[in-house]
Amino acid sequence: MEGSVTRAGEAAALRYVPLAELERLRALDADPAARAAAFADACRLNVLYMVARAGSGHIGTSFSSIDIVSWLHLDVLSDHDRYFSSKGHDAPGLYSVLIALGRLPFEKLDRLRRLGGLPGHPDVLTTPEVVTNTGSLGMGISKAKGFVLADRLAGRSGQVFVLTGDGELQEGQFWESLASAANRGLHEITAIVDHNKIQSDTWVADVSDLGDLQRKVESFGWATGRCDGNDAADLGRALGELGREAAGRPKLLVADTVKGAGVSFMEPHGLPPGGDELYAYHSGAPGPDEYERAVAEIVERLGRRLETLGHEPVRLEEAEAPARSAPMRPQKLVPAYGQALADLADAEPRLVALDADLILDTGLVEFRRRHPERFFECGIAEQDMVSQAGAMALAGLLPAVHSFGCFLSTRPNEQIYNQCTEGTKVVYAGSLVGLVPGGPGHSHQSVRDISALGAMPRMALLEPCSEHEVRLCLDWAVHEAPGSVYIRLVSVPWELGFEPPAPERLVLGRGDGVRAGADAVIVGAGPVVLSQAYAAAELLAERGVECTVIDLPWLRDVDGAWLAELAAGAPIFCVDNHYLSGGQGDAVAQALAVQDVAAVTLVRKIGVDRVPQCGTNDEVLRAHGLDAEGIAARVAAELPARV
Amino acid sequence: MEGSVTRAGEAAALRYVPLAELERLRALDADPAARAAAFADACRLNVLYMVARAGSGHIGTSFSSIDIVSWLHLDVLSDHDRYFSSKGHDAPGLYSVLIALGRLPFEKLDRLRRLGGLPGHPDVLTTPEVVTNTGSLGMGISKAKGFVLADRLAGRSGQVFVLTGDGELQEGQFWESLASAANRGLHEITAIVDHNKIQSDTWVADVSDLGDLQRKVESFGWATGRCDGNDAADLGRALGELGREAAGRPKLLVADTVKGAGVSFMEPHGLPPGGDELYAYHSGAPGPDEYERAVAEIVERLGRRLETLGHEPVRLEEAEAPARSAPMRPQKLVPAYGQALADLADAEPRLVALDADLILDTGLVEFRRRHPERFFECGIAEQDMVSQAGAMALAGLLPAVHSFGCFLSTRPNEQIYNQCTEGTKVVYAGSLVGLVPGGPGHSHQSVRDISALGAMPRMALLEPCSEHEVRLCLDWAVHEAPGSVYIRLVSVPWELGFEPPAPERLVLGRGDGVRAGADAVIVGAGPVVLSQAYAAAELLAERGVECTVIDLPWLRDVDGAWLAELAAGAPIFCVDNHYLSGGQGDAVAQALAVQDVAAVTLVRKIGVDRVPQCGTNDEVLRAHGLDAEGIAARVAAELPARV
Repeated sequence: MEGSVTRAGEAAALRYVPLAELERLRALDADPAARAAAFADACRLNVLYMVARAGSGHIGTSFSSIDIVSWLHLDVLSDHDRYFSSKGHDAPGLYSVLIALGRLPFEKLDRLRRLGGLPGHPDVLTTPEVVTNTGSLGMGISKAKGFVLADRLAGRSGQVFVLTGDGELQEGQFWESLASAANRGLHEITAIVDHNKIQSDTWVADVSDLGDLQRKVESFGWATGRCDGNDAADLGRALGELGREAAGRPKLLVADTVKGAGVSFMEPHGLPPGGDELYAYHSGAPGPDEYERAVAEIVERLGRRLETLGHEPVRLEEAEAPARSAPMRPQKLVPAYGQALADLADAEPRLVALDADLILDTGLVEFRRRHPERFFECGIAEQDMVSQAGAMALAGLLPAVHSFGCFLSTRPNEQIYNQCTEGTKVVYAGSLVGLVPGGPGHSHQSVRDISALGAMPRMALLEPCSEHEVRLCLDWAVHEAPGSVYIRLVSVPWELGFEPPAPERLVLGRGDGVRAGADAVIVGAGPVVLSQAYAAAELLAERGVECTVIDLPWLRDVDGAWLAELAAGAPIFCVDNHYLSGGQGDAVAQALAVQDVAAVTLVRKIGVDRVPQCGTNDEVLRAHGLDAEGIAARVAAELPARV
Repeated sequence: MEGSVTRAGEAAALRYVPLAELERLRALDADPAARAAAFADACRLNVLYMVARAGSGHIGTSFSSIDIVSWLHLDVLSDHDRYFSSKGHDAPGLYSVLIALGRLPFEKLDRLRRLGGLPGHPDVLTTPEVVTNTGSLGMGISKAKGFVLADRLAGRSGQVFVLTGDGELQEGQFWESLASAANRGLHEITAIVDHNKIQSDTWVADVSDLGDLQRKVESFGWATGRCDGNDAADLGRALGELGREAAGRPKLLVADTVKGAGVSFMEPHGLPPGGDELYAYHSGAPGPDEYERAVAEIVERLGRRLETLGHEPVRLEEAEAPARSAPMRPQKLVPAYGQALADLADAEPRLVALDADLILDTGLVEFRRRHPERFFECGIAEQDMVSQAGAMALAGLLPAVHSFGCFLSTRPNEQIYNQCTEGTKVVYAGSLVGLVPGGPGHSHQSVRDISALGAMPRMALLEPCSEHEVRLCLDWAVHEAPGSVYIRLVSVPWELGFEPPAPERLVLGRGDGVRAGADAVIVGAGPVVLSQAYAAAELLAERGVECTVIDLPWLRDVDGAWLAELAAGAPIFCVDNHYLSGGQGDAVAQALAVQDVAAVTLVRKIGVDRVPQCGTNDEVLRAHGLDAEGIAARVAAELPARV
């Protein structure tokens, strides 16, 4: 769960395979497949190290794919070839392999999901060794085509290997991209499906079964093959056969893998198909005990492998585990949302919920338990989900539609507009919004959703800061909103540092003060912004500047007259957990600009002014000047005479 | 071509089949298939009437599908069933059938694409007889699923028939939607592909070949069949067979049809496959001579049909053709863009162009002629197109990516963001932006693109008002822009009413005055806004109010200090060919709000405040208060003391 607190971090020490040992394994005098298997296990150990150290990361898919990634890098790829993962979630696995190959600095092992380190998903600007930015799903084949067409135009040659997930294949873009690859005869492309059969929440077959995948892909004019993707020898055989049989066609290899492969308890053998239980190792980090057991298991197997080959066991080095602290009284918005939705559904039979493979991350476990017949799992198919919801609304239902904010606001952007033009009501709930968690990186940091949804007709955009306000927003959406509503939810459990306002209902365009002061007004929404704004106000108070802090959950509809009167001539600072352009700050600024008051002397926007950094939550907020100190400094800088 | 001037309107008179005759054909004592054929031909005549009268409309697809639509409505659909077209472009055909059935008022025949009439694409709010809003492609199966799931939940039963295009099947959402329909056993769904083999520009096989369509769809678990879709008897046979064979599966019928079927010269028999020639009857209206020939041909065939059945020939009534005028000195931005792009490509070998089946509508004919190896036709697959362009940019090319603004800004919204995060440059050119042409309706009226793209990092948004400015924008995009650029192009040839500014280059965030006056400042972009703003200023001048009018092509980056100084305390009015929220007006208002000047006393935004109306260009601008009179009235209302 991307927004969850980590299970790890309490381990006394973490262990990694040092560079010299990696170099030994890479050059091991052995059968290539046996060498690759040993190399992959060493890389698994370093994935565990990186993720445990970072406190989050995608172990399940890193482990299912790492035998493929290892084989390609050790035995297949030439200098002219490109390799990238379309899903990108398996970045720890890729980094681990690149580090072992000496293509990334070894020190980066300590910097997964840290500022200036290795982002949670691949990023070409911070990590030039990766080929393209991924993390958002379904774009891989399209990108491979673009590379091949550009290479052909430039007279360059080279193969493009692209790894995809299997849940990822639910995305329409994957299918959209197949036809022209075949029609143009882009034989340079080899797609490999990391077919681990588990997507974010559970079995792919339970979420949205893929059917006969090879038959489907072949019907699009591609050559296909199948192999055991956790067996380097079988992988080598299958790639060779496919290359010979493709005859000018693009190629797709279905590689049967096991999610979490290589650590028995991370493999999903015990997960009952068709049940409600969720797979536990898609993201997040292992707990201390899990970490120890996983390391022991891999070390033992790797030792056996090396012994069989007549080599010494691998030598691990130790590093101290980073200390971590959890908030004392956090607001947990996503569970609060899920509870409120399930409660509302008790009394409102028209309410149905649609999900895109993020039951846990959007708080829907409780809704599904209480209203299973009104829960629709759509898989990773946001366009399809929203258009279904639109039709359901026309047929008299009140659908609530869920995904991460970054995907929900953009992938089905036109489908949402289509629904809005029909005059019906749909509630869109986007979680994982804003800069934090900072670990997943910019593909998952939703700081553009307010802009992307900002001009939907009759749609209100709301961001609650507390569990209480979550319920108010959902109440308003279901009972009062004239049109559709987007509810923007910070996923990280977050401590406000102040007692949240507890009004009985929302008032359109207005908010509540959480602190009073005559020198300046700071306006914002959501727990991250308001906690930092409040703390900034406390810092400023120590310097004699007293700020009002306003919790304004309305991201678009702003009552400018109310705000201007409230400010009474004091400068207004808008803080946005969003790009400066198109965020709440714009809505506030323009609401003030169209007032007939000369009283507002100064409006300043504080927000995200570049592609979000990846790092710990503290690092990221600080890097973007959105921590308490940064906000206080910006306010102080505008009030030179006072501070 | 959606933005083109009509070829029609000069016919002295137009002819239609009156209601009594339609009723006679509907109840004709004949074999059902023969009756449906006669009925469909009568509906074809009324489609011709409606489109000729409107001056635009999709004849080609209305004619290819009208035998299917007629058969379904006469002999298949029950009260519990739903029928809709996923493509929606065939709305004139559907309207014609619904009018003939008495389900739409006969008077609406005169009101295609008119205010309060029948929109260019289906709209549930103005036309409750239609089932869902379509016009944007690929959403149909998803919607059918939503209807079936809602019906099942409510204990209702009924079939859902959804017509799709064949070019439309290039959209990923179509494929995305198939799996769960099969997995959930949604046997209530029958999709019929109007397989006329021609998409907007030319042959589907030349744009992006579909391959073996039945095999593909069957591989997704659907039952499929095939028939002659212009032969009611064969259609009836195939639907019956498919229903019997489906065995609980959703059904898809590939109906082989002929685009423009029923009028020999509108059928594409003479269009050479693989050539550069474009199909001429996708949209637009027939010229007077074409109109006469088409009517004569249908009347003659319908007469023969009726004679064979022993019935009287159909009696037509006449109505005067509406007069039309063309602008004298229009700015033609799309052709100017295409010319400039081709010219730039002569000197810039990195420049490549990608298109989504809108070669003519985005001005790319010249580029393709001069640089065929650098032209990539991607089909109706915007997500795939943008991700390909992103990879091409990473590989060193400078891609220019094209579609209508409504689709380009939304369908691949996340793919564009992904590209922007890679720090590369892509030029996005969206045509058909804004309220006009008013005929196609809100699915095509791009009034949300500025908002949807407003927070793309390092992306500039530009809207030129003149052919000269088009060249400046493209020059800036290619040679100066630090990141990606969106160029927003009004498609309708448009007369400015003033001499356009002719600076040598753009200055970031600033614009040019096209009229001077001290009482107020009107700011806007693009030929539609500026022509109306200029005319408004002339109207106001007659009442003693002198306005400055500023051509500000920057939609996001606004130099607030420059504008505040220029206004010198005069009130500023921002006019947007876009929703009020998230348009240029917001950018201007917030740029002024963050200035340290108390000089700006009043900022007002004028723009689109509800879902765009469909109608003639004049009707639509007036309905939204964006014609000269509307703008003048808004300005005057804010200056009561002066006017």
